[in-house]
Amino acid sequence: MSVVELLKEKIRQEGRVISDDILKVDSFLNHQIDPILMLKVGEEFACRFAGSGITKVLTVEASGIAVALMTGLCLKVPVVFAKKKQPSTMEGDTYCGRVRSFTKEEVIDIVVAGSYLGPEDRVLIIDDFLASGEAARGLLKIIDQAGATLVGIGTVIEKVFQSGGETLREQGIRVESLVQIGSLAGGQVEFLN
Amino acid sequence: MSVVELLKEKIRQEGRVISDDILKVDSFLNHQIDPILMLKVGEEFACRFAGSGITKVLTVEASGIAVALMTGLCLKVPVVFAKKKQPSTMEGDTYCGRVRSFTKEEVIDIVVAGSYLGPEDRVLIIDDFLASGEAARGLLKIIDQAGATLVGIGTVIEKVFQSGGETLREQGIRVESLVQIGSLAGGQVEFLN
Repeated sequence: MSVVELLKEKIRQEGRVISDDILKVDSFLNHQIDPILMLKVGEEFACRFAGSGITKVLTVEASGIAVALMTGLCLKVPVVFAKKKQPSTMEGDTYCGRVRSFTKEEVIDIVVAGSYLGPEDRVLIIDDFLASGEAARGLLKIIDQAGATLVGIGTVIEKVFQSGGETLREQGIRVESLVQIGSLAGGQVEFLN
Repeated sequence: MSVVELLKEKIRQEGRVISDDILKVDSFLNHQIDPILMLKVGEEFACRFAGSGITKVLTVEASGIAVALMTGLCLKVPVVFAKKKQPSTMEGDTYCGRVRSFTKEEVIDIVVAGSYLGPEDRVLIIDDFLASGEAARGLLKIIDQAGATLVGIGTVIEKVFQSGGETLREQGIRVESLVQIGSLAGGQVEFLN
């Protein structure tokens, strides 16, 4: 079974629709994590973005880390995760983006230390979900500040009805979503792929 | 070279002593992550805890996730990461611990959804650092609430002079640290192993 079919099967079996906007998949993706499935997801992203000269995988803590790590493992490149707000041990130059969290209803700053991204980097953004695209925009701002090059965005589940992916693609950005969801209305997951 | 020697080499080359208490290793462990090294770390923990009947690996977001994920991959068991404070999508029964963050100087609650730990579970706690043992104690409280069994604690770097490991071992808990640091005084990393 392809990783896309495996993910859809998991979503059918374990996903819970909390509202018309929120699909909970924390039994395998972002609270409890299925490491073997994550490795397959990483292999799939590495395959889709093969030959793009990627030097870094970039994500945001915490739920993006597992997918990003496996993608970095398969691409054999370092993974950087943006931290939410500036901890006391991160001094010196930092790149910063601002993100409105959809599920937590708050605005947070995400930061990456200046040492871990630079003009020589070709960056693949990886995240668990793509909804409104807020996290991606925060990471794009960080890549921009670093003078690095964006190769594309890989996301496990795209909630297409929240339009983040559409907006990013309209900007000419390559967005690869493994599972695309068209609607969660009435508690039903409607897959588009 | 063994993973322990690889880690010590990395710490010698890239670690920065920020104060007598704080060693910064965010070039490979907890901001930028070296996925291949993390896989080796996961293999090492899986090897040390082989035959213990582990059913879950438990950690705290965010910096424990990478090590825990690779350990779960090698042990072929799910990974659960405790979340800092309760997000709006995590309703229902939860287990909760309280942790004083050493580097961030704040007190936070860490929570695990009731569905992902239970009396049938044999749990390995994994984290990047073991210092005062605050995070471990928060996770122990969660394991206790779930009625699960603790198998042991695996940590990449133990700052032995902060006594968390000693206290846990005195309680009869098996603690495996890959690198043990005796002192950071004068900006020098003193390895004990």
